Amino acid sequence: MHFDHAGIATRDAESLVFLFEDLLGVGVAHEEWFEGMKLVFLEVGEGYLEIIEPTDEEGTIANYLDREGPGIHHLAFATDDIASALSRARAHDVRLIDETPRPGAWGHTVAFLHPESTGGVLVEFVEH
Amino acid sequence: MHFDHAGIATRDAESLVFLFEDLLGVGVAHEEWFEGMKLVFLEVGEGYLEIIEPTDEEGTIANYLDREGPGIHHLAFATDDIASALSRARAHDVRLIDETPRPGAWGHTVAFLHPESTGGVLVEFVEH
Repeated sequence: MHFDHAGIATRDAESLVFLFEDLLGVGVAHEEWFEGMKLVFLEVGEGYLEIIEPTDEEGTIANYLDREGPGIHHLAFATDDIASALSRARAHDVRLIDETPRPGAWGHTVAFLHPESTGGVLVEFVEH
Repeated sequence: MHFDHAGIATRDAESLVFLFEDLLGVGVAHEEWFEGMKLVFLEVGEGYLEIIEPTDEEGTIANYLDREGPGIHHLAFATDDIASALSRARAHDVRLIDETPRPGAWGHTVAFLHPESTGGVLVEFVEH
C-alpha cells in the first residue's frame, strides 16, 4: 500500500491551492464538486493534497470545520484490493465508517475507518 | 517537492505501529529518541508515517496531546533546497516557526511553518 493523499479542510480552497502550489512547486491534477464539497487535488510526487471546501453547510466537512477548525482532515492510502484492506481492519476490531467500499471522488472506490480505532487518524482506503 | 511523511501524535507508539504495520502492510524503517520524543518511521511507498510518542511531559508533543488529543500532527514535504523553500514561504508572508533550517530527526535538516499561515496545517520542509 502507498500514500495516496492527505485531505485538508478549509473554507477557502482557492487561496489554499494558490499558496500550496507555490510553496511546494506543484500543480492541480483534478478538480471536482462531490457530495457537498469542492475538491482540488494537487499532485505531490506519487500522491496528492486534497483541498476540501464545503459547499453544503449541513454536510460533514462544514460540521468538521465548525467543530475543529481548518487543517488536516484525513490520510488516504492506495490499495489494489480494498476488500482485503477492510478485512484486515475488521481483524483488528477497527470500527468502520464504511462497512463496504463505496464510490468516492475522482471515480475511485473508497472506505473510511473511524479515528477512534486508529489513534485519532481518519484513515481512508482508496482503490483507483 | 514530494510527500515525505505524515506525523501522528500518540501516547502509545507501540500499539499504533503494530496496527498500522498490519493495516497498511508496511514495516519500520527507522526508530529514534529525539528531543523528548520516541519516533518510529513506517515506510509507506516513497514516504513515511512518523509515529510520535512524547517522552518529555513538558515537551511540545505532550502539550499538543493534552490540548488536541491524538491524531495527525503535521505533514512533511521533501525538498533538495530547504533554503529556497523557506524563501518562497517568506514571499507569501507565511509565519515561520524556524527562521533558519535546523537539525531534525534521522539526521535530516528541517524547518516548520506556522499553521496559522497554512490553513491550519503544520507544514514541515525536510532536506535529506
